[in-house]
Amino acid sequence: MWPNTKLTKILKIKLPIIQAPMAGGPTTPELIASVSNAGGLGSLGAGFMKPEDIQKAVHKIRDLTDQPFAVNLFITKKPHVSENEIKNMRKIINKLTKNITKSSLIAKPPYYQLYSEQLAVIIEEQIPVFSFTFGIPSDHWLKRLKDKKIKMIGTATTVSESILLEKKGIDLIAAQGYEAGGHRGAFLKENEESLVGTMALIPQMVDHVKIPVIASGGIMDGRGIVAAMILGASGVQMGTAFLACPESGTPSYYKKIILSSSENNTVLTRIFTGKFARAINTRFIEELSAYQEQILDYPLQLALIKQVRDIAQKKNINDYSSFWSGQAASLSRNWSAKKLIVSLDKQVKKIIKNFG
Amino acid sequence: MWPNTKLTKILKIKLPIIQAPMAGGPTTPELIASVSNAGGLGSLGAGFMKPEDIQKAVHKIRDLTDQPFAVNLFITKKPHVSENEIKNMRKIINKLTKNITKSSLIAKPPYYQLYSEQLAVIIEEQIPVFSFTFGIPSDHWLKRLKDKKIKMIGTATTVSESILLEKKGIDLIAAQGYEAGGHRGAFLKENEESLVGTMALIPQMVDHVKIPVIASGGIMDGRGIVAAMILGASGVQMGTAFLACPESGTPSYYKKIILSSSENNTVLTRIFTGKFARAINTRFIEELSAYQEQILDYPLQLALIKQVRDIAQKKNINDYSSFWSGQAASLSRNWSAKKLIVSLDKQVKKIIKNFG
Repeated sequence: MWPNTKLTKILKIKLPIIQAPMAGGPTTPELIASVSNAGGLGSLGAGFMKPEDIQKAVHKIRDLTDQPFAVNLFITKKPHVSENEIKNMRKIINKLTKNITKSSLIAKPPYYQLYSEQLAVIIEEQIPVFSFTFGIPSDHWLKRLKDKKIKMIGTATTVSESILLEKKGIDLIAAQGYEAGGHRGAFLKENEESLVGTMALIPQMVDHVKIPVIASGGIMDGRGIVAAMILGASGVQMGTAFLACPESGTPSYYKKIILSSSENNTVLTRIFTGKFARAINTRFIEELSAYQEQILDYPLQLALIKQVRDIAQKKNINDYSSFWSGQAASLSRNWSAKKLIVSLDKQVKKIIKNFG
Repeated sequence: MWPNTKLTKILKIKLPIIQAPMAGGPTTPELIASVSNAGGLGSLGAGFMKPEDIQKAVHKIRDLTDQPFAVNLFITKKPHVSENEIKNMRKIINKLTKNITKSSLIAKPPYYQLYSEQLAVIIEEQIPVFSFTFGIPSDHWLKRLKDKKIKMIGTATTVSESILLEKKGIDLIAAQGYEAGGHRGAFLKENEESLVGTMALIPQMVDHVKIPVIASGGIMDGRGIVAAMILGASGVQMGTAFLACPESGTPSYYKKIILSSSENNTVLTRIFTGKFARAINTRFIEELSAYQEQILDYPLQLALIKQVRDIAQKKNINDYSSFWSGQAASLSRNWSAKKLIVSLDKQVKKIIKNFG
């Protein structure tokens, strides 16, 4: 069974290990290429990136590897937020951050990248694998992607989301368990707060779809990989496990936090972007969570918070940053991506050998 | 590896499968004895039971099996709730249930069973295995239990709770993942809302304690059992999987709900007892959740809710019942406990055979 699965066949890779697309910095071309060169699938978290920056990153990745890799986009809808709501949240954030933000924050349009412009790059560059979250691209785009033979991975947090992805002709499903760090990928309105643990999600999902399921959420080492595959997954997607790699773009203070983490110091919060996401708990999260009801829809909340973070970082203050993390960060290592992948492969082989 | 583990050796059973102690009805002597006779470990959920009723049940179990079984107790502290707070919650519940509760509800002492009186029965009867949750018995009781060579299983929801249990000389740890149905077993104040998924919890816990860890939360079939053991568990505890067995004391309307469940229709709520617990979501949970801040500490909340439920059940109304359930109830079967255990053993053997 290891390492050849339906997933490795479809994606034309050697090991069924996907480095999760973590938008906002960690997924450098160096990290992605290292993972792909070691036999896994590196992924660019391009959700926040401008089309021209995606193109530059893709060229850089191709300079560093001839192996398949993925680019991930956020498929979002236009938010419905009034000027008054923005004003109100701006006031709240200004109050909570008054020691650093002297001037008032302004959320300026454009608030987010249009996924159509980003997708045009994916198609133009004929990226080997396109993964997506928060939604499903329109049929028009799905057809264009398929015409270019670009393999597609959609994100699902529930069984019903996975069924929808399969119906749309998507090639693989990234099943996101409750333990996962970063944004929840839910795209059905009624599943927005669906939080199903990986142990419960994978067997129920694989019983309902025929296309291969990729397990994610709380998977950090060979034990997690084999367990996920026993549950029925065809491979795994790991994010937090790669955060502390030297090739990752994670700032060093963030790496330190990850490496000294414990199993119960993360929370699910909407305060950073407007969408549910798992991060290491901080005083700022607790303070802003008192205004739960006034949090703006994605990406308006992000537009305001980003300004605070930018101001703070110039002053070397990290108190307002989002330290995305899964629930098993304590198992992370600061090994190179190559060493990590080689070690995961060895761990899996050892477990299988000892198991029979 | 299967079926002989440290757990089967310590508990003197054939298969490392524990039927979870589900207080309030499901764990009949018939269910417990069937599980134990089939090679697993049946458990009596005795938290709500009077000492004399525990004794009667134990005698019945011993009439039905000569195999080891467990009795589980709630190790709780005296609640701090004022008369005014009780009055207030009584008003809220009366308002929400006015179609059935004509007279005002009264929470009458004694609100709960004293665990010392219950423990006296465990010791007198020299029960093979004593499992507990919500706390740790005092050193005085631990010594008496050990003197009687009664094996002990403590419940932990975090790594730090598991370390404390090990320090107290407990024999095994039941690690409760976020996916688990029913009450959260947390006993450290700061871990009350710690919700760590099974996939993340087990490997981090087994890396910190030497005594065997029993995995629970979202485990329903052979896939879950093998996955849990790959993660490092020495065995599993399964609750929801046994709810629909004919031997279980679960009412038939509840069994129907479990058998037609989906992965994301449960919620964690304090409305039924005052302690966090996972149940199928209902209109009553949603309505009473609006008064989150006024929910009474365990077991005062339960004392009021129990009266509503008793009145409703006499009228064949199930709207106010708590349908405890884990996140993978859709995988449950209405097989006999014996058939279930035999099938789980076969599933595990098949997975191991095919995997190597």
